[in-house]
Amino acid sequence: MSKRTKSPTAQARAHGRKRRPPPGSAPGTLQGDPAALKPAISAICFGPDAIREFGPAALDTVAELRAQWPVVWINVDGLGDLDIIRRLGELFGLHALALEDVVHLHQRPRFEDYGEHGFVVTQMTHATDRLDYEQISLFFGPGFVLTFQERPGDCFEPVRERLRQARGRIRQSGADYLAYALIDATIDADFPILENLGEQVTMLEDEVLAGPVAGVVGRIHQLKMNLLGLRRVIWPQRDMVNSLLRDGDTHFDPQTRVYLRDCYDHTVELLEMLETYREVASDLIDIHLSSASVRTNEIMRVLTIIATLFMPLGFIASLYGMNFDRSASFWNMPELGWRFGYPFALALMGAVAFGLTAYFWRKGWFSRT
Amino acid sequence: MSKRTKSPTAQARAHGRKRRPPPGSAPGTLQGDPAALKPAISAICFGPDAIREFGPAALDTVAELRAQWPVVWINVDGLGDLDIIRRLGELFGLHALALEDVVHLHQRPRFEDYGEHGFVVTQMTHATDRLDYEQISLFFGPGFVLTFQERPGDCFEPVRERLRQARGRIRQSGADYLAYALIDATIDADFPILENLGEQVTMLEDEVLAGPVAGVVGRIHQLKMNLLGLRRVIWPQRDMVNSLLRDGDTHFDPQTRVYLRDCYDHTVELLEMLETYREVASDLIDIHLSSASVRTNEIMRVLTIIATLFMPLGFIASLYGMNFDRSASFWNMPELGWRFGYPFALALMGAVAFGLTAYFWRKGWFSRT
Amino acid sequence: MSKRTKSPTAQARAHGRKRRPPPGSAPGTLQGDPAALKPAISAICFGPDAIREFGPAALDTVAELRAQWPVVWINVDGLGDLDIIRRLGELFGLHALALEDVVHLHQRPRFEDYGEHGFVVTQMTHATDRLDYEQISLFFGPGFVLTFQERPGDCFEPVRERLRQARGRIRQSGADYLAYALIDATIDADFPILENLGEQVTMLEDEVLAGPVAGVVGRIHQLKMNLLGLRRVIWPQRDMVNSLLRDGDTHFDPQTRVYLRDCYDHTVELLEMLETYREVASDLIDIHLSSASVRTNEIMRVLTIIATLFMPLGFIASLYGMNFDRSASFWNMPELGWRFGYPFALALMGAVAFGLTAYFWRKGWFSRT
Amino acid sequence: MSKRTKSPTAQARAHGRKRRPPPGSAPGTLQGDPAALKPAISAICFGPDAIREFGPAALDTVAELRAQWPVVWINVDGLGDLDIIRRLGELFGLHALALEDVVHLHQRPRFEDYGEHGFVVTQMTHATDRLDYEQISLFFGPGFVLTFQERPGDCFEPVRERLRQARGRIRQSGADYLAYALIDATIDADFPILENLGEQVTMLEDEVLAGPVAGVVGRIHQLKMNLLGLRRVIWPQRDMVNSLLRDGDTHFDPQTRVYLRDCYDHTVELLEMLETYREVASDLIDIHLSSASVRTNEIMRVLTIIATLFMPLGFIASLYGMNFDRSASFWNMPELGWRFGYPFALALMGAVAFGLTAYFWRKGWFSRT
Amino acid sequence: MSKRTKSPTAQARAHGRKRRPPPGSAPGTLQGDPAALKPAISAICFGPDAIREFGPAALDTVAELRAQWPVVWINVDGLGDLDIIRRLGELFGLHALALEDVVHLHQRPRFEDYGEHGFVVTQMTHATDRLDYEQISLFFGPGFVLTFQERPGDCFEPVRERLRQARGRIRQSGADYLAYALIDATIDADFPILENLGEQVTMLEDEVLAGPVAGVVGRIHQLKMNLLGLRRVIWPQRDMVNSLLRDGDTHFDPQTRVYLRDCYDHTVELLEMLETYREVASDLIDIHLSSASVRTNEIMRVLTIIATLFMPLGFIASLYGMNFDRSASFWNMPELGWRFGYPFALALMGAVAFGLTAYFWRKGWFSRT
Repeated sequence: MSKRTKSPTAQARAHGRKRRPPPGSAPGTLQGDPAALKPAISAICFGPDAIREFGPAALDTVAELRAQWPVVWINVDGLGDLDIIRRLGELFGLHALALEDVVHLHQRPRFEDYGEHGFVVTQMTHATDRLDYEQISLFFGPGFVLTFQERPGDCFEPVRERLRQARGRIRQSGADYLAYALIDATIDADFPILENLGEQVTMLEDEVLAGPVAGVVGRIHQLKMNLLGLRRVIWPQRDMVNSLLRDGDTHFDPQTRVYLRDCYDHTVELLEMLETYREVASDLIDIHLSSASVRTNEIMRVLTIIATLFMPLGFIASLYGMNFDRSASFWNMPELGWRFGYPFALALMGAVAFGLTAYFWRKGWFSRT
Repeated sequence: MSKRTKSPTAQARAHGRKRRPPPGSAPGTLQGDPAALKPAISAICFGPDAIREFGPAALDTVAELRAQWPVVWINVDGLGDLDIIRRLGELFGLHALALEDVVHLHQRPRFEDYGEHGFVVTQMTHATDRLDYEQISLFFGPGFVLTFQERPGDCFEPVRERLRQARGRIRQSGADYLAYALIDATIDADFPILENLGEQVTMLEDEVLAGPVAGVVGRIHQLKMNLLGLRRVIWPQRDMVNSLLRDGDTHFDPQTRVYLRDCYDHTVELLEMLETYREVASDLIDIHLSSASVRTNEIMRVLTIIATLFMPLGFIASLYGMNFDRSASFWNMPELGWRFGYPFALALMGAVAFGLTAYFWRKGWFSRT
Repeated sequence: MSKRTKSPTAQARAHGRKRRPPPGSAPGTLQGDPAALKPAISAICFGPDAIREFGPAALDTVAELRAQWPVVWINVDGLGDLDIIRRLGELFGLHALALEDVVHLHQRPRFEDYGEHGFVVTQMTHATDRLDYEQISLFFGPGFVLTFQERPGDCFEPVRERLRQARGRIRQSGADYLAYALIDATIDADFPILENLGEQVTMLEDEVLAGPVAGVVGRIHQLKMNLLGLRRVIWPQRDMVNSLLRDGDTHFDPQTRVYLRDCYDHTVELLEMLETYREVASDLIDIHLSSASVRTNEIMRVLTIIATLFMPLGFIASLYGMNFDRSASFWNMPELGWRFGYPFALALMGAVAFGLTAYFWRKGWFSRT
Repeated sequence: MSKRTKSPTAQARAHGRKRRPPPGSAPGTLQGDPAALKPAISAICFGPDAIREFGPAALDTVAELRAQWPVVWINVDGLGDLDIIRRLGELFGLHALALEDVVHLHQRPRFEDYGEHGFVVTQMTHATDRLDYEQISLFFGPGFVLTFQERPGDCFEPVRERLRQARGRIRQSGADYLAYALIDATIDADFPILENLGEQVTMLEDEVLAGPVAGVVGRIHQLKMNLLGLRRVIWPQRDMVNSLLRDGDTHFDPQTRVYLRDCYDHTVELLEMLETYREVASDLIDIHLSSASVRTNEIMRVLTIIATLFMPLGFIASLYGMNFDRSASFWNMPELGWRFGYPFALALMGAVAFGLTAYFWRKGWFSRT
Repeated sequence: MSKRTKSPTAQARAHGRKRRPPPGSAPGTLQGDPAALKPAISAICFGPDAIREFGPAALDTVAELRAQWPVVWINVDGLGDLDIIRRLGELFGLHALALEDVVHLHQRPRFEDYGEHGFVVTQMTHATDRLDYEQISLFFGPGFVLTFQERPGDCFEPVRERLRQARGRIRQSGADYLAYALIDATIDADFPILENLGEQVTMLEDEVLAGPVAGVVGRIHQLKMNLLGLRRVIWPQRDMVNSLLRDGDTHFDPQTRVYLRDCYDHTVELLEMLETYREVASDLIDIHLSSASVRTNEIMRVLTIIATLFMPLGFIASLYGMNFDRSASFWNMPELGWRFGYPFALALMGAVAFGLTAYFWRKGWFSRT
């Protein structure tokens, strides 16, 4: 009530709102975000027998590298310089609309086939204190993979490690396998994040089942929003991988397609976990409501027992506290002058209390429900 | 309770009821709304190298313009003169049923292919203090685009600006690209409106999570009605764009179709945002109910603690306020004459209070839940 | 609580139960309802240039009329004479199973193609004080339309008027167009009824948002039942029109099919309105529950504030109303003899009252929520 | 609370559990239920001109009868003798897996085409005090129909009557029409049962709308369980009839197929009624909850009004019941000695009562809600 | 509130989390779980006439056995030695990706066709005190079936018994029939587990219908989680069997396919039971909420009746307990000196009590609701 906390949807929207072109602007023109980071280009070139990494690669050497090495992976961190993006587009012959999607963030994950090259746009999930999505644009064609990221830091490090140490078949395979490995890495990165959300579900479950807690509804809601947000990423990712399998067969050799199928299974698994958590989270609100009702009943019962016991007793006591003038008439409160008036009154109270207690007992109000 | 406010559905219905022909009337006959605005015709004629605008264009010059310019865009604001609409229909060879749909407002957005020309009817969303829909009818064929609007003021200004400044490929392209650009403009115009509704979701979320508020249910309901109304427009718009892609391929050249696909992605994105907001808004009612229950519990607990504490104490006090005649008998309230009668009574009360407090403590009623 | 009102489902069922043949009876045999009205036959014969109406037409003249006129529309009000129905069936060569459906009421709206002739069964909605459905059976073939109604009074009057005044293309067209016009009329007749239900939704919305009202739940339920009932009619009507378009193409000439498409759009529109109203009506129960909870909180708060304030005060007053014998001991209620005993007691009460009020204030219980 | 009644699901499960073979047992072996009734074989043989019934038919005569008559209908009541079932299977050349399904009860209704003969397994609903399902297995092929029932007593009597009296086309038609007639009879038998459930819905509706009743929730639940159970039978019956139409066309002549289509329409109608009742029953819980809330509000309001009125009044009365020693000081309760002290106190109480009443009035707590 | 119990989702997650490879690791490499049990190989070799079992079979003899016997079933309990798994893979020519799935637990049940051999991965449900899933990997090809289990103890014993006793056609059939029998056994094993959950549903139903119970919500939730978990296994099992039928036809001879169809029917039946239980369990929360509301009403009514009766009575008693000085003025409480003052006060109280009781009676508060 005191300080307004940013609501979960507010956070999501604050993030999602940036960098959509104004309605009615011409399509196909690059419009950058002035706040975007300056691009830092790095390159990894490899063949079955050799690998070389170029930390900050100059744009001019890219064409050269491409000619020299079997597979070249150019990675660009930061989208702040439209000129560099445009020149890379020219170097690799990329389609203008796809380049536009690189800088217009918050695209739905999807695959587009541009004949010469394939284009995959997807979202990489970061879990800091809240879920955060970073757009990854990935072009792949014969002998090259080109990835654009919003900022440094990604989930591709294990892939780089496999390249360096020539683990598995990654060095023997072409650019299509590298593209698969990178897509797979972004999808696999959602597993620990979903696990973490699952842990939150568990904790909230424990709390809610222990009894109605005031703040818990807000946290359940926050969790549901996170799951909803993640679902908006994973669902189209599944379609994207499916579309790679269905429409992108010219880009992948049959053996890589087997791995893509595996990758598709992972997205299905992610979605199943997600839906399970969503279902549990939805249940939690109901359980919360239910246990709040039971708790209300319990409190009400205590109140009613106490009030129902003491009101008649108090009434009797008040009755004999009346000041009618016994001297004025025989009829005025003769009990007060009885020899056993007070014991009689106490006995009356005891009888009433006993009777009511018996009534409640029979109603089952003392049994723990 | 005092003054009946117009309910959200009432507003929507008041708007939606106007100008449906009476049941059983003959189809294909133009039946105008006498309250409709008089049509104001304007024209923009352009080719790759030149552009000319005719503010209030005379109906007679339209045929002439069409012959002179590569592309002619005739825009009609106001549907109050059936004669003008009929004559425009003759000039461009439009189908009678389509013309009828122009004046019968509140059509579902859809595309109809009449061979010679395509016909798109859609709804443009205005967000004043409430959502307001204006029907846009758009005919397009070789060398012409013809738009009908209910009243002046639209979301086409950025397109006009692009035409004037020859930004992008709009001046180089034909009428099909212009038609796409206009459709895209009406769809893109929904983004800021949806953003605004999203802000309302956020605000309501904050309020509801802070605690149960009386009026908030009505506002959540109003919001849900707005989202429902918008959904009734965007959902068929998606189908319309899809139908343009699927059935309207004779009207669009392949390059424009790529842009239409982009436009389709936008409607999907709009729907996803919309469904997310709808889901959140639905949750809000549940959260409201849940926090109202918790609040009730809290209030009940305070009441029960107070009542349960003071009722026994009050009873003891009343007990010793009884007026039994101590002189009549030894048995009548001897406590009153004890040396430490009063301290005894106070001690008794203190013991009861302490016992009950301990009971509540053990029940956990003082812990903040 | 007093007098049991007929529940909405009871009304619907009472209506729907009549005239189903007993389980296991032979199909294809006409079994009439003895309570059905006697049939009244009327005929409208027309060509492009002439029209003639026969108020109560004799059965014998029908064959003659059919030979003389381009299009003959025979309408039968009342299904009480199976013989007449059978003979009409023979005259027009109608299928036995279709004739059976004419007298077995409460058929789902549907279209059946019997090669020679088409058969449409549908429900016409009457809105008296409650929704009431009347079965319309419509046969159409070359040069004839044959309609059966349960009772006089229908929504076909505007069509008759168009025939008489030769408005639109109805007189120029064949029996297929007339069949379309009649089907369209029954569908269009649902619009004002749905509008009326929409008004009820609005009124209930206003009431529910104003606060929890006892009887309103029953009325929301009644409304939902009406919408459910209408849905059971309109949904299969949509399928019926779709089936006319898809399977009935041999019966309709291409131009009439364009109008049927329009008719189909109307059923879609009806369903969309209906679903919107259903969604709002479903929400209303939740809103009702929600505002009842808020109201309970409000009432509880007033009760708790009052009780919590006055219980301690009352306790203090009772305390000093005890009758301990001050003369028996110095320790017995010395306050009563103090110089400022009474002001002290009042001050004590004031302090308690002030403290509790401050406590409630800090808890925000006085702020309007 | 007292005696645990069998819950609705318990009843259904107790019924459904019997006679499933243990997990992992070999398929295709007949495993009978020792508690099953001994089979009683009866036969009806007929042609267009003659009919003959054999009450308890000997197994040996069956082959003979089949050779002599155009159509033979063998009916077996009771599944307690596996040998008889096996020999009948041999006589008619039935598939082993189908025979197994005859004795393994609680099969989902479905149709299987075994080339030579068709096999339909379905459930016949009995409505005693609760819904009870009896498995009907029906084999049909050229010249024979073979039905197995769990026990005597079925819904086929009207079909037998039609056979005896040669009503309709049943005697003229072959075994396929008889099979249709029997399937149709089991489906039609569900109409009165569903009607009866509909009446229960109506009664519960009336009760719930009249106010919250304690036991009603259990009865609504029981009703929903019955509807759920019926749905589990009717839904696959619809698929079964559809499968007869789609896959079983070799078994039925075209004219019978028209009747099967009619039968399919009946299952659709049953499902629609069922879904409507289910929807109403689901609503009832919500309505119950809603009116319980309204009722709670009403009770709370009475309590709050009374408590809020009498607590201050009681406090004032207690105040002047204090025993401060007026003789000790001028400040001690001088009101008690005033000339109009008592009227003053009464007036004070009256003012307080009037003020609170006015407050409640303004809050609208007296208006009937 | 005291000790945090492991929530149901926590249990499920604790189980499900183990042994997923870290994100980004190379596919197709075997990564074992160090905690996994050491593999124990057993073999059953059989032909129509002979059978021989090898308790702990040495890996070296497997190739030999395969050559000697028509069908060899190798079963491996425990996945702790990757080397053995790899060598078995080589012996039977298994695909590397399939082998990887053997050790990566918690795969969704599915079928993969690798041409030479089929691969089925599924989950076997164990019901100890909670549901527990064990992954079964099953390879089958000409003359061999190879099964991997996580640990000893399975539901295959009845199949082994059938093999030993040559019951049914299992010894006559090939490896495809054995594969079917094993898959069928894992599916049939779910029936008793589902029955057991059904019994829990029944018990909770009884409890909830008897009245609101505090802990029951947690147990309903636990049950729903179990049903949800089982659904995540059975749903893909259905797809798996369907996929065996649709895509695996090269592996099964036509007669076995008939049995597979039967197996498919079982999964459909399992799912129907499951969905029914899920629906009931969902209802239970609503019923619980509903009866809690009714119970609250009941308690409230008792409280309100008592409070409303005794508050006015107590007020009257307190009124005449005031100490106004009757000697000071005639107006001060003259009632106290009346001859029938006390009877008058008692009569007044009686009248008030009677009036209120009559009011409650008319409101129907005494009737049992």
